[in-house]
Amino acid sequence: MTQIAKAEVFVTCPGRNFVTVKITTGDGVTGVGDATLNGRELAVASYLKDHLCPQLIGRDPAQIEDIWQSFYKGAYWRRGPVTMTAIGAIDMALWDIKGKVAGLPLYQLLGGASRQGVMVYCHATGHSIDELIDDYAKHQEQGFKAIRVQAQVPGMEGSYGIAHQPGEAYEPAIKGQRPDEQLWSNEKYLDFAPKIFDAIRNKFGFNEHLLHDVHHRLSPIEAARLGQSIEDYRLFWMEDPTPAENQEAFRLIRQHTVTPIATGEVLNSIWDCKTLIEEQLIDYIRTTMTHAGGITHMRRIADFAAMYQIRTGSHGPSDLSPICMGAALHFDLWVPNFGVQEYMGYSEQMLEVFPHSWSYHNGYMHPGEQPGLGVEFDEKLAAKYPYQSALLPIARLEDGTVWNW
Amino acid sequence: MTQIAKAEVFVTCPGRNFVTVKITTGDGVTGVGDATLNGRELAVASYLKDHLCPQLIGRDPAQIEDIWQSFYKGAYWRRGPVTMTAIGAIDMALWDIKGKVAGLPLYQLLGGASRQGVMVYCHATGHSIDELIDDYAKHQEQGFKAIRVQAQVPGMEGSYGIAHQPGEAYEPAIKGQRPDEQLWSNEKYLDFAPKIFDAIRNKFGFNEHLLHDVHHRLSPIEAARLGQSIEDYRLFWMEDPTPAENQEAFRLIRQHTVTPIATGEVLNSIWDCKTLIEEQLIDYIRTTMTHAGGITHMRRIADFAAMYQIRTGSHGPSDLSPICMGAALHFDLWVPNFGVQEYMGYSEQMLEVFPHSWSYHNGYMHPGEQPGLGVEFDEKLAAKYPYQSALLPIARLEDGTVWNW
Amino acid sequence: MTQIAKAEVFVTCPGRNFVTVKITTGDGVTGVGDATLNGRELAVASYLKDHLCPQLIGRDPAQIEDIWQSFYKGAYWRRGPVTMTAIGAIDMALWDIKGKVAGLPLYQLLGGASRQGVMVYCHATGHSIDELIDDYAKHQEQGFKAIRVQAQVPGMEGSYGIAHQPGEAYEPAIKGQRPDEQLWSNEKYLDFAPKIFDAIRNKFGFNEHLLHDVHHRLSPIEAARLGQSIEDYRLFWMEDPTPAENQEAFRLIRQHTVTPIATGEVLNSIWDCKTLIEEQLIDYIRTTMTHAGGITHMRRIADFAAMYQIRTGSHGPSDLSPICMGAALHFDLWVPNFGVQEYMGYSEQMLEVFPHSWSYHNGYMHPGEQPGLGVEFDEKLAAKYPYQSALLPIARLEDGTVWNW
Amino acid sequence: MTQIAKAEVFVTCPGRNFVTVKITTGDGVTGVGDATLNGRELAVASYLKDHLCPQLIGRDPAQIEDIWQSFYKGAYWRRGPVTMTAIGAIDMALWDIKGKVAGLPLYQLLGGASRQGVMVYCHATGHSIDELIDDYAKHQEQGFKAIRVQAQVPGMEGSYGIAHQPGEAYEPAIKGQRPDEQLWSNEKYLDFAPKIFDAIRNKFGFNEHLLHDVHHRLSPIEAARLGQSIEDYRLFWMEDPTPAENQEAFRLIRQHTVTPIATGEVLNSIWDCKTLIEEQLIDYIRTTMTHAGGITHMRRIADFAAMYQIRTGSHGPSDLSPICMGAALHFDLWVPNFGVQEYMGYSEQMLEVFPHSWSYHNGYMHPGEQPGLGVEFDEKLAAKYPYQSALLPIARLEDGTVWNW
Repeated sequence: MTQIAKAEVFVTCPGRNFVTVKITTGDGVTGVGDATLNGRELAVASYLKDHLCPQLIGRDPAQIEDIWQSFYKGAYWRRGPVTMTAIGAIDMALWDIKGKVAGLPLYQLLGGASRQGVMVYCHATGHSIDELIDDYAKHQEQGFKAIRVQAQVPGMEGSYGIAHQPGEAYEPAIKGQRPDEQLWSNEKYLDFAPKIFDAIRNKFGFNEHLLHDVHHRLSPIEAARLGQSIEDYRLFWMEDPTPAENQEAFRLIRQHTVTPIATGEVLNSIWDCKTLIEEQLIDYIRTTMTHAGGITHMRRIADFAAMYQIRTGSHGPSDLSPICMGAALHFDLWVPNFGVQEYMGYSEQMLEVFPHSWSYHNGYMHPGEQPGLGVEFDEKLAAKYPYQSALLPIARLEDGTVWNW
Repeated sequence: MTQIAKAEVFVTCPGRNFVTVKITTGDGVTGVGDATLNGRELAVASYLKDHLCPQLIGRDPAQIEDIWQSFYKGAYWRRGPVTMTAIGAIDMALWDIKGKVAGLPLYQLLGGASRQGVMVYCHATGHSIDELIDDYAKHQEQGFKAIRVQAQVPGMEGSYGIAHQPGEAYEPAIKGQRPDEQLWSNEKYLDFAPKIFDAIRNKFGFNEHLLHDVHHRLSPIEAARLGQSIEDYRLFWMEDPTPAENQEAFRLIRQHTVTPIATGEVLNSIWDCKTLIEEQLIDYIRTTMTHAGGITHMRRIADFAAMYQIRTGSHGPSDLSPICMGAALHFDLWVPNFGVQEYMGYSEQMLEVFPHSWSYHNGYMHPGEQPGLGVEFDEKLAAKYPYQSALLPIARLEDGTVWNW
Repeated sequence: MTQIAKAEVFVTCPGRNFVTVKITTGDGVTGVGDATLNGRELAVASYLKDHLCPQLIGRDPAQIEDIWQSFYKGAYWRRGPVTMTAIGAIDMALWDIKGKVAGLPLYQLLGGASRQGVMVYCHATGHSIDELIDDYAKHQEQGFKAIRVQAQVPGMEGSYGIAHQPGEAYEPAIKGQRPDEQLWSNEKYLDFAPKIFDAIRNKFGFNEHLLHDVHHRLSPIEAARLGQSIEDYRLFWMEDPTPAENQEAFRLIRQHTVTPIATGEVLNSIWDCKTLIEEQLIDYIRTTMTHAGGITHMRRIADFAAMYQIRTGSHGPSDLSPICMGAALHFDLWVPNFGVQEYMGYSEQMLEVFPHSWSYHNGYMHPGEQPGLGVEFDEKLAAKYPYQSALLPIARLEDGTVWNW
Repeated sequence: MTQIAKAEVFVTCPGRNFVTVKITTGDGVTGVGDATLNGRELAVASYLKDHLCPQLIGRDPAQIEDIWQSFYKGAYWRRGPVTMTAIGAIDMALWDIKGKVAGLPLYQLLGGASRQGVMVYCHATGHSIDELIDDYAKHQEQGFKAIRVQAQVPGMEGSYGIAHQPGEAYEPAIKGQRPDEQLWSNEKYLDFAPKIFDAIRNKFGFNEHLLHDVHHRLSPIEAARLGQSIEDYRLFWMEDPTPAENQEAFRLIRQHTVTPIATGEVLNSIWDCKTLIEEQLIDYIRTTMTHAGGITHMRRIADFAAMYQIRTGSHGPSDLSPICMGAALHFDLWVPNFGVQEYMGYSEQMLEVFPHSWSYHNGYMHPGEQPGLGVEFDEKLAAKYPYQSALLPIARLEDGTVWNW
């Protein structure tokens, strides 16, 4: 039996922070996993470096399930974003090793390709509807079949999803020790949102899948109202209409609208979405490899969702590293109940640190045919970009109340 | 891409009938799957030979999921024992090939070993309680940690699970064109059954897990009564207490007794046990690789069951071939929520036809370390044992009414 | 007591494959049953020929219930399309014999006529809405009171229900060893479907019952949306809006729309639709004589449905033979909670092989007054048309994912 | 407005690891909070030091609610043990400051004392029932009114709750990089457990409240069986009978037994026990100050529980520092629906590092009358005891399967 010889953790900031786990076997086979939890990177790095990695030394890297269960059940304190991200990164790295040992790309270990390519959706945004229309056209030309649209609510500088400067890539996390605080009004948003879809559908018709992210801002009855008011624009989904800690809250939305609903990017385990799925309160589950316990746990979430005709729609912002992107694309290529994959893209600088076999072409992505995940990690280059503290913003209502960002 | 070059079906009767699928790739890699449906063997063989095998030629053997979905969804007429057994056998053969291509035993592809060995339970039976006690002692000496006990209800020659002759292996299927018809009385059974457990626990104590198969004979309220009346004997499980087509019927049993319940050997898909699992009406799910759509589908059933703290307890009689036994042991070695595996054993004649790497030692089994399933099929030897019609019995009440056998 | 002397199985292809069971008593009375399972014909033929027919020899043909229970319970492996079709065909043949012995048409044995004629619905289709309008007009002229409409989704060659060539009869099964693979997009369909009904109702008004078959293609929320969006066109029913393995999925549709729902053509037993009926999630149950266990089991399904005010709407495509058509019409003439009967018609060639007493006139059909089913089987003519492999298509989404055909 | 000037994190190991937060205002007022997460200490320390503490600088320490909401909602990735422990420690420290500013002990700020003292329960354990009886007697003499009893299952060295050496304090976490792996058998435990209570009640009668911790080891039906089988011994509670991720699983236990149930020590938020409480599936909620978001969040949990007549029974092992003990006692003295408080005690060494005003007398405890929490932290002394890696054990079944420790 080969044993795990090394388990290392790297934090690098080639434009934004990424946490990477690298496991090396006694035979010299390496596997990598993404452990990035935006704004809480070092806590996960410590969880790995100080608590999990030392436990890995000497263990059989083939025993992925046993290691997963040991870390989940053995933690005693289960679940939550930090814990599940740490476990997820190790799981990804072990599947990477398994694929390399087998000489097969990950999707082949999962059951082979169920489709030719992975449909991804991109982000079109604007400080105004006009600016959004321009951005939409640009993405349309790049071949995207599914486009998420967000526009700045007039007078609300901090609308979710809008780049600080026109043309700039959207990065919500702001460098520094204190989070950005952004103004928010549900009423103004509810008044404005339908106009976005009206403008887009009038201009571009119904050829692309149209998506929108409410980003947890509405109450259940407000979300029900929004969903109902935009049915004519036939959205592919309305994302995160209300916070999901109270899963039963989605019943109210569901009773009032047939606008499809997606949620899950902030959920970390199958238990966080059990009721949402069992009661068919959503149509797409958006958990990720990195934050929901890796491939081993995501497979369980997706299979559970399939029983209730719920499809996947994995979260895929640029704060998940290109390693997670690779793992997600393998998963997406296989998973029978695939829906869509989010793809925000990366800067050149970021991509250089993570040489990868995945690729984009005309609205679809593919994980490539390299054994394992098909993503490597350039330690030397990474070392040139030390960690820089950055935080996600906080939303406040007009009277100052902390709201859901 | 390698393609499937051949897909053959074999029916052989080295003591009892077995249906085997063998798939050969263009590279000469072969995989085998078990397609035995006791008493309905030729219908499955035809389903495979006439309808599925021709569709396989030229397909990529690595696309296990796509082939599974094509056969399940593409049949249009989904589910049922014949369909799911045919799909299951092909799925097993494709995973066998995948393992050989990867150079890994199946359990490694599933996630690695979660335990050292697979606890199996054996069958102890008797025409009387005394005979049963002797048989129990014999199995105890062989090291079994879990023993299923059945004894003939006085005056009921056809009690389920009792060999025709003392000392003979139990084979319910009788050769010929017409099924054996056996007498049955729920009342006599209910009166007698608790005495079996009382005798065993008094004689042997509580060291072994004690199991019993009701074999679908009772009504829900009778099953509730039986379960309640035997709680002091602490059974590992009470199997198939009542037919499961009406899954909600188990609620009644569940309200009255804490005797653990197992069911599933006659179920063919996750849909057949969805309510049983979701409502935690059972404790062990007994579906099999062969009859429930192969490894691809069994994994989904087991994962679904795990969410509700239900463990596996796969059916494993001698009418599932040593190929299914192999696949089951790989699955059992991996599956986190493993409970127990049934093991009835095979005659020497049967084992010669299916050379295999799995083994038994002191109550536990292991699938071995050969790539894939670790079971081969000796076509030449098999050809010496042509198919012989044999049928499972029919049960009739004392007034002649057809009952659940 | 007369005994069953012969039980034979015939497979013939007078344009399409049909499987027929013929039972002959010692007195020379014969009965016929339809055992056609489109695309899986030979598996059912084997189930009958190899496993059930030998058991029939020597049995009393009058014991229909006992034979049904022996085959259902005695199979041990219950339910599913192959099993239930085989049992259904024998049941039909035994009822045919019973009618002939009694000198009464089947409907008289069931309880006599509850109506003068059986309202049937036909299929109007088109590669475009204009072509559909022409076809609708043609069927209207033929007197049909209920018309199902399907039109090709622009750009989707494989839309369900559309003939390959205009004017040709629609036959989804394609001869050959590999299934046709058809492109599908839910979004394009959802965009297009309401326009079909709008055009028809604008052109022809509301005189005829308007039906539409979604053919399992939508997710529950999409089906809810479709149902809601077409309420103004007052459909008689929206058929198979989503797959029914997860029966609870229909709750979501039901909460959003009052468009009536029909389902059941792929279901084989009362257990497959128990929740759909108990919770009144559908309005019409579409199981068939042939695929749901014959007259004995269909009567139980219809009676169960009546308890919940659900009516029958039996599946009746040309892949069920004229024998099933006859049995269905007797059933429809009697069954108190009759809704409508599908009628696709047959080619002359097919009808010659199955001389029959049933007839069509001005939107209504009648089974005729011959004893038994009133359909015969011309063995000699049938022998001229040997079996030809043919398969139902597979649907794939634009990215290649296997979808529900 | 005074601002927060400093927010420091300390890790110290005076026998076991404790993580302490200390917040200092511009006025020099200090507050302390406990952030110990046994076996994952450094991850929480990093979460605090690297991510939360910098955000505190310059904020108004009086805005406890706003800071809590900023950290909970502003994290974006909510819930889980690491996150909620970090937030909880800061919350405790801010309440400590608030109390000192007001010149009032915490319980006064919460609403004043609802009782004279806080009933606590202690732990009596033994490697055998005889040893347990001796230990019970000792605790009885110390005046305890409520005693939790655990005894080693014969042959199971790793039984939960048993000290390594007789007479030694029980410390489950073992120093080193790899966790201790302990053998476990549900069957042997179920056989043995009732004997414990039988012996105790026979020896000591019913004067003390008798408690027992199942420590998540049983399946729901096994837990139901245990609860049912020990009703005559009238336990105060049966703790953690089965894992609580699937909250609905407790329904099964609840249907079979009136033995009261307590759970919650591994739960971190109100969302983790929402169903358990709403459906009255438990009788005592055992969440803690430290792991469930501090005083601010615990108050909400207790108030929610009160709506369903559920009382508190806070977890209080020695891995929560004397700071948490102090906070808990203030909370317990006030909270209207108080049940009982766990109290394991501390070594002299530990108590020296945390000078405190709380005290024990004759079965009851009191938080003392010092302003704030009444617990201080001796930084200098603490610095003498650097962090030492230690991990909670992992339980494995006899076949090697990872089980719930």
